[in-house]
Amino acid sequence: MQKNQKPCYYGDYLQLDQLLNAQAPESANYGAEAHDETLFIIVHQVYELWFKQILHELKAVLAVFAEEEVKDEQLTGIVHKLKRVISIQQLLNQQIAVMETMTPQDFMSFRDYLVPASGFQSVQFKMLEIGLGLKSDYRIDFDKNSFYTRLNDKDRNFLQALEHQPSLFELIEKWLERMPFLEFGDFSFWQLYQQATQSMLNRDEAIVQGIEQLAESERELQLGEIAKTRQKFAALLDSEEYHKLQQQGAFRLSQRAMLSALFISLYQEEPVFNLPFQLLTCLTEIDENLTIWRYKHAMMVQRMLGTKIGTGGSSGHDYLKRTTEKNRIFTDLFHMATFLLPKSELPALPAGLKKRLGFYFAGD
Amino acid sequence: MQKNQKPCYYGDYLQLDQLLNAQAPESANYGAEAHDETLFIIVHQVYELWFKQILHELKAVLAVFAEEEVKDEQLTGIVHKLKRVISIQQLLNQQIAVMETMTPQDFMSFRDYLVPASGFQSVQFKMLEIGLGLKSDYRIDFDKNSFYTRLNDKDRNFLQALEHQPSLFELIEKWLERMPFLEFGDFSFWQLYQQATQSMLNRDEAIVQGIEQLAESERELQLGEIAKTRQKFAALLDSEEYHKLQQQGAFRLSQRAMLSALFISLYQEEPVFNLPFQLLTCLTEIDENLTIWRYKHAMMVQRMLGTKIGTGGSSGHDYLKRTTEKNRIFTDLFHMATFLLPKSELPALPAGLKKRLGFYFAGD
Amino acid sequence: MQKNQKPCYYGDYLQLDQLLNAQAPESANYGAEAHDETLFIIVHQVYELWFKQILHELKAVLAVFAEEEVKDEQLTGIVHKLKRVISIQQLLNQQIAVMETMTPQDFMSFRDYLVPASGFQSVQFKMLEIGLGLKSDYRIDFDKNSFYTRLNDKDRNFLQALEHQPSLFELIEKWLERMPFLEFGDFSFWQLYQQATQSMLNRDEAIVQGIEQLAESERELQLGEIAKTRQKFAALLDSEEYHKLQQQGAFRLSQRAMLSALFISLYQEEPVFNLPFQLLTCLTEIDENLTIWRYKHAMMVQRMLGTKIGTGGSSGHDYLKRTTEKNRIFTDLFHMATFLLPKSELPALPAGLKKRLGFYFAGD
Amino acid sequence: MQKNQKPCYYGDYLQLDQLLNAQAPESANYGAEAHDETLFIIVHQVYELWFKQILHELKAVLAVFAEEEVKDEQLTGIVHKLKRVISIQQLLNQQIAVMETMTPQDFMSFRDYLVPASGFQSVQFKMLEIGLGLKSDYRIDFDKNSFYTRLNDKDRNFLQALEHQPSLFELIEKWLERMPFLEFGDFSFWQLYQQATQSMLNRDEAIVQGIEQLAESERELQLGEIAKTRQKFAALLDSEEYHKLQQQGAFRLSQRAMLSALFISLYQEEPVFNLPFQLLTCLTEIDENLTIWRYKHAMMVQRMLGTKIGTGGSSGHDYLKRTTEKNRIFTDLFHMATFLLPKSELPALPAGLKKRLGFYFAGD
Repeated sequence: MQKNQKPCYYGDYLQLDQLLNAQAPESANYGAEAHDETLFIIVHQVYELWFKQILHELKAVLAVFAEEEVKDEQLTGIVHKLKRVISIQQLLNQQIAVMETMTPQDFMSFRDYLVPASGFQSVQFKMLEIGLGLKSDYRIDFDKNSFYTRLNDKDRNFLQALEHQPSLFELIEKWLERMPFLEFGDFSFWQLYQQATQSMLNRDEAIVQGIEQLAESERELQLGEIAKTRQKFAALLDSEEYHKLQQQGAFRLSQRAMLSALFISLYQEEPVFNLPFQLLTCLTEIDENLTIWRYKHAMMVQRMLGTKIGTGGSSGHDYLKRTTEKNRIFTDLFHMATFLLPKSELPALPAGLKKRLGFYFAGD
Repeated sequence: MQKNQKPCYYGDYLQLDQLLNAQAPESANYGAEAHDETLFIIVHQVYELWFKQILHELKAVLAVFAEEEVKDEQLTGIVHKLKRVISIQQLLNQQIAVMETMTPQDFMSFRDYLVPASGFQSVQFKMLEIGLGLKSDYRIDFDKNSFYTRLNDKDRNFLQALEHQPSLFELIEKWLERMPFLEFGDFSFWQLYQQATQSMLNRDEAIVQGIEQLAESERELQLGEIAKTRQKFAALLDSEEYHKLQQQGAFRLSQRAMLSALFISLYQEEPVFNLPFQLLTCLTEIDENLTIWRYKHAMMVQRMLGTKIGTGGSSGHDYLKRTTEKNRIFTDLFHMATFLLPKSELPALPAGLKKRLGFYFAGD
Repeated sequence: MQKNQKPCYYGDYLQLDQLLNAQAPESANYGAEAHDETLFIIVHQVYELWFKQILHELKAVLAVFAEEEVKDEQLTGIVHKLKRVISIQQLLNQQIAVMETMTPQDFMSFRDYLVPASGFQSVQFKMLEIGLGLKSDYRIDFDKNSFYTRLNDKDRNFLQALEHQPSLFELIEKWLERMPFLEFGDFSFWQLYQQATQSMLNRDEAIVQGIEQLAESERELQLGEIAKTRQKFAALLDSEEYHKLQQQGAFRLSQRAMLSALFISLYQEEPVFNLPFQLLTCLTEIDENLTIWRYKHAMMVQRMLGTKIGTGGSSGHDYLKRTTEKNRIFTDLFHMATFLLPKSELPALPAGLKKRLGFYFAGD
Repeated sequence: MQKNQKPCYYGDYLQLDQLLNAQAPESANYGAEAHDETLFIIVHQVYELWFKQILHELKAVLAVFAEEEVKDEQLTGIVHKLKRVISIQQLLNQQIAVMETMTPQDFMSFRDYLVPASGFQSVQFKMLEIGLGLKSDYRIDFDKNSFYTRLNDKDRNFLQALEHQPSLFELIEKWLERMPFLEFGDFSFWQLYQQATQSMLNRDEAIVQGIEQLAESERELQLGEIAKTRQKFAALLDSEEYHKLQQQGAFRLSQRAMLSALFISLYQEEPVFNLPFQLLTCLTEIDENLTIWRYKHAMMVQRMLGTKIGTGGSSGHDYLKRTTEKNRIFTDLFHMATFLLPKSELPALPAGLKKRLGFYFAGD
């Protein structure tokens, strides 16, 4: 306790007067207050408080990656913050069960009073999407055309300015591109890698050819998939091909960033890659949790409204479902398994390189 | 303790010798045993044990509904069993997190040895789907063509025979059709209901017309949706129209069953409807949990394999994703919100009818 | 949309300006802002929002039970509200995982600035405890002596006044006492019940005598337990004995309320008891969840502080642990299993009574 | 697919014939089969399968720590395996909800047939406890006297032999003792540490003295706690004092191991400590999850049996509750917060040392 420190009182510290008086059901303005509107308000307010917390973590993470260099000890803190974001997301996903205790009939008793408000107007949620890297270009069409029109000028201007700030996706991409691990001197890593992947794909092809019970149409489909995968493998080391596939949406990360991420994933057990690999895994999980939230949310909306329209005038569940497919950010990491090899087939790293991937201490 | 009762020993009772010696990693037959194959085996065995439990509950529920009459006190047990199924499903959904502790690389170290085994060959899972009501006709095409070819003769014959047994969907439909609550004597319930729904849809239309910020294309879309909903409302009481929409897939339940389910949902607070409404809610949740399981499972497979093919020779995640949309059973219940009214707009039930919906005790 | 209805805007409706500006870290007043203090504030604010929601449900439930008569259709709504409370509690229990993402070191960077604020000063949490029935008389000593001194006058007066309002425990007790099901005319239910329980206890005694492997000290202990249970059974129907045990803390409910609750539990499958039994089960679960929350909370505090003192100047985890044992409310319901019989040994209800426990409809 | 590889079939691979025919309800031998006994069997079988998986991970972890040296890259795998154990434990804790769908009445319909079987006879659970480090000496008395008498000879002999194998606790202790980080050359770390902790404790004392609202008895209690903490701090660097406290149960780890664990915890953000700190955190969480499982399990048993005796002839919930307090393993880690300092008060590490705690790469 510092000298002259003012004693702290729980209710004042948490500003409970302000917080617990911020629930004003609209239904009260049009006759009888609907009992469940309080739940509706509080569920959304809790979401917004957690969004604030997630944005607080994201901001700190962005600040570190915006620097020229990210020190190893800083990664500990970054991973810690991202794991907290994941922990909050798991809670948000759980929270849908609380909203589902409201029956459709209960919702109808106040739905009309909320028009045209809508979750699409959550500025913090958009800040989160934009901050992670889901900028206009990557959104599904509905967003591009129809999203900004729903906002008031202040909110719209604020978010549109944000689209010009570097997102986590962009900063991570740059950080991966800066990684020094791709220069191996004489060690022809990528050549060995390609040989190993060729033989893996050949094996996959043999599997598909060898399963008798497979319907012919199914077999065709699978062989086609393998061919596409071959093409992607080839593109990894061919910048022209890569760029072409990237423009078709097959990759989002730059080639160099993609190769760094792949190398980290392949040799994830080397000490120096432990934190970077945890970081990539966190990003994948954040993306996955966001997708599961969208999906569960869409089902909840559907159960609440059926085919009725939402308060914002659109059939929300439909929109939300489309976003689960498209509005993904770190898809390259999510699909990384495509390019992995079993440990037993990994090209062995030369001793000198291996030492450099360890701790200073161990190398004494 | 009964006379002559043999003392029971924990390990014998649970047949642990048999249970804990049923994990034989294939990788051990081809060189080094892969550490994570045990996890893979045990995760699937636990799934199968829970499937057995769910089938045990389902069988008991089917037996009751197969009777001419379902007594009120039997419904207590039915709802109890279905809630247990839901509780198990929540655990199954949680369990995916355990599987996700296996990295793609770890999976690759034994994946090839399992070809062409596949989760599609789980007989119990298909028993569950068929038992609930997901018979061939309702499955996505992949299932129809390609599913049965993967099974050995014994399993295929067993499951194909099962397709001819009455499913829970069919028995519930019959039970709803038998409900005596739709005869109201002089009380013109459905007429009042239609008036109330008309005015609700008119209000919805006004909402969509009134929101200035709505893009024109979006407005068109929404008005189209409302028109479709009007058509569905009209069809509810017009057996010819209903039949037409049913054939287009807009309804799966028969008209009479649908009306019973709707009436129960509208007056869910009447004591006599308490258990029936819980029952309908349970069915909706079982369907929803199955869908969420498929979805999370699909994401896990995708993360594990990328665009690689699965052990059964198909890109599992793609198949699984398609099933989340199509392989639903109680969709009519899931979309019931479409047809609901706010409590304040519900036609009041005549006193005589209301008394008959209460307890004998209360009516003394 | 009502005529003249003002358009609703998401951020205004949720009062986000107020909500999202209510986080003022104390550390900012004493030098560098501690990154994790925001988490600390938001975690507690979210708790308080959920407490407000739980109190909203509790208030509605209390209002119904304060009436002379609780109608059957009202029970549907009551059970629904209590299930929502349970759903929120499950989330609160989950939420501890988010708090645990803060390391002890991070907490230390701002702990001192919060002195002497403490969770013990949460007025809403005490409102909840008092509202459920945990009044001063039932609290552990720490509460009685030390709790109220920590509050400011306004909060203390408010809570002390609340102690004189009827709690849920008291209203439920009255409702159980009013139940008409205990008058059976000629049917000597309780006599049959006592015969059945005697033979059950005899069987238990034989079990303990019969297990060879039981250490003698253990056997003594168990026989002592059975003797105590016999005494409790005897007391159920002997108001003098009951009163004596009640004063020793073995029962909290009045004898008549206890018998009603027992009868409902024994015949829980009768339709008329479906909702009452759900209600009793909900109360047990609410109590259990509160206990689990206290326990997990105590462990979290211990992990955060070790044996250091908390911001309120006491070793919080110790206090919290003691409360998990003592600060329970519906313990009689929680221990109800003591008095239950297997279904096969339940005295059969006479046909006339059984009919009266069914629906009016079924008795037509 | 290897040449001559036998095609794999799902049901054969998982040995489903064996697995799904291992549920034989005892009640079937004494008249009518009790519906819920299947649940009881399957819940316990699933527990045993997960125990097998946890033991599989534990065995692999023990094997690494049994070596002279643990390489940095091995720690990645260790932490990964322990996180999997945690993930399984979270599922086990969740699983109690499934068991709770069985009512006390349902349990009574077959309880008597299981006498004297009991969960205390789970050999795998004891293997797990012993493997982690909960050997006879550390157990509560009930275990010491009464546990082994319940087992058959084979199981007893097997477990008693296991008590002589090195446990995870012992191996971790040795690994911590081997750590080279405690030799600092000229750097008088522990002296600086003690100065910092003294001033922290002085501040704590001032806090307790300064809070006016604290009852005098409470203040005494807290000052006593602080005095004890001072004693523990002093003992950290005084091997005689440490040994004394260790014998009183205040510490379980050896002094040297404790100091290593403390140093790792204090400088957890240094790259070289990232994995060791994750390891220590995992051990704490495994211990904590085991405790929460015991606690929830005890509550479930209490709800199922009331004060009735369990199938093994003892009041299980009581035993289980006592174990939540005493049967802990890594308590030193759990209480580590006692000895931590805020980051701002940590003695700064000399540059040379700091470099040696980083990656080789960074030091190039």
